[in-house]
Amino acid sequence: MGKLLIVGTVAFDAIETPFGKTDKILGGAGTFIGLAASRYNIQSAIVSVVGEDFPSSYIDLLKDENIDTSAIEVIKGGKTFFWSGRYHNDLNSRDTLVTELNVLADFDPKVPEHFKDADVVMLGNLHPDIQLSVLRQMDYRPKLVVLDTMNYWMDHSMDSLMEVIKKVDVIAINDAEARQLSDEYSLVKAAAVIHDMGPKYVVIKKGEHGALLFNQHNIFFAPALPLEEVFDPTGAGDTFAGGFVGYLAETQNVSFNNMRNAVIHGSNLASFCVERFGTERMLNLTEKEVTNRLRQFRELTQFDIELQ
Amino acid sequence: MGKLLIVGTVAFDAIETPFGKTDKILGGAGTFIGLAASRYNIQSAIVSVVGEDFPSSYIDLLKDENIDTSAIEVIKGGKTFFWSGRYHNDLNSRDTLVTELNVLADFDPKVPEHFKDADVVMLGNLHPDIQLSVLRQMDYRPKLVVLDTMNYWMDHSMDSLMEVIKKVDVIAINDAEARQLSDEYSLVKAAAVIHDMGPKYVVIKKGEHGALLFNQHNIFFAPALPLEEVFDPTGAGDTFAGGFVGYLAETQNVSFNNMRNAVIHGSNLASFCVERFGTERMLNLTEKEVTNRLRQFRELTQFDIELQ
Repeated sequence: MGKLLIVGTVAFDAIETPFGKTDKILGGAGTFIGLAASRYNIQSAIVSVVGEDFPSSYIDLLKDENIDTSAIEVIKGGKTFFWSGRYHNDLNSRDTLVTELNVLADFDPKVPEHFKDADVVMLGNLHPDIQLSVLRQMDYRPKLVVLDTMNYWMDHSMDSLMEVIKKVDVIAINDAEARQLSDEYSLVKAAAVIHDMGPKYVVIKKGEHGALLFNQHNIFFAPALPLEEVFDPTGAGDTFAGGFVGYLAETQNVSFNNMRNAVIHGSNLASFCVERFGTERMLNLTEKEVTNRLRQFRELTQFDIELQ
Repeated sequence: MGKLLIVGTVAFDAIETPFGKTDKILGGAGTFIGLAASRYNIQSAIVSVVGEDFPSSYIDLLKDENIDTSAIEVIKGGKTFFWSGRYHNDLNSRDTLVTELNVLADFDPKVPEHFKDADVVMLGNLHPDIQLSVLRQMDYRPKLVVLDTMNYWMDHSMDSLMEVIKKVDVIAINDAEARQLSDEYSLVKAAAVIHDMGPKYVVIKKGEHGALLFNQHNIFFAPALPLEEVFDPTGAGDTFAGGFVGYLAETQNVSFNNMRNAVIHGSNLASFCVERFGTERMLNLTEKEVTNRLRQFRELTQFDIELQ
């Protein structure tokens, strides 16, 4: 059975959208990646850190999904990472209201012994030095290393970030980040520049406009499922990444053609994530709903033009 | 052989992009629709109006593509419709610098006798009263009527516009126009509202983000081909419409499944249109290039997930 190691935040979010607002609820990249990936037939673990204020019931939610939480360190007397944001009316942009790093400021990730041989490593958005530390602790070079990052690290820790980028197989970032990283507006050109930095595969997430997968020779595009209503976009990108790595860890096939499927699986799970606040929809999602929506993705994109 | 009747402007454009600027060149919705549609095995005619200043060599370009130009009226002493615009750096938005209606102000369209039995009618973006006049002149209800329009007519001639919308099978507009027409932000909800106004099919063009096709029960999505560089977006939407109606007029099959193919054909031709200024690329486009790029569209969207 494929082993997936995830490093990412497990945290509190407080979210405001045009549809309502939440108190502090369960959030964090590691959480969303883990919940999505755990839908696949794999062994997974999250490496993270929380404070003493973090409810054990939240950890239990992850355990219930068969996620190994032994490497989520609880810091005595510490406070959990907290992010709060308010989305604009179109839900395409948001203002950050609060970012309290708290225990994340001194996060020293420890990969559990029994995951040092993981097949797939997902480096969620964090300081690139933390991501490098995780890679250094592995016993073997994993079959596949997937990286997420953000503009903040491009602005503040570019040298470390370039060192991580050199070491990964797949980078999965959004369109604005791809443009900043490459200094190219055209996403086709951006992907080519990023290929030259190291990653064999570049995934560019465009939110409601879908996602692109590039290798040196091919492009694949997965639409986002057109929805009646997007309720809360928080965690959609991480849920996408979780579906992507979960599917690849299960199938153990990292060819471009199988990655097409992985991108569809990621888009499919992300389409559920945005239907409720935070992790709510992902925690109440049946296999039948997932399969039916995969069918919708096929319906959405299929055509039949005969070509000589 | 399928007959296609097009009503739309045949005009002068002057374009500025970050890559350069043009003098007055051949433009107009009717021109772009005609050039795209004429690539299919159909009979087509354009109903339009130009001034005495319009070069006969431009009319000859259309004739060379087997387009019937007998209903492009030349007004003695009149001046041709002229539009000039400047695109912003991202090519996604533009400022209109000049709009001179000239002979278009009194345009009284006359459908040629031998096209009053056309199978497909494409109503390019014009005053809705002109579009209605064309429909009234037909001998029979065409198999398919496709409408393009814009926000200007929603602001200034909503009653006439609603009358046209009621009479057409397909409306093909961009995302901002769909939102304005329906007063819904979600494109899924917008399409549902527009269905209730009359059209059985709603096509929503999203520029570089592709196009959506809706009927009451199904959604199809065609991506735009990711390009290294977009040079000039002028005419892309009309070229899309031209490929869409040209393919449908040739195949004479207006099922949802065949419309999927039509949307891909439209997207395919539009991807060429933006590679040069104005009509330049469309006038120098081989069948082999068209077929190869259709293959790219298939490569771009194809995946293979097994579902029970």
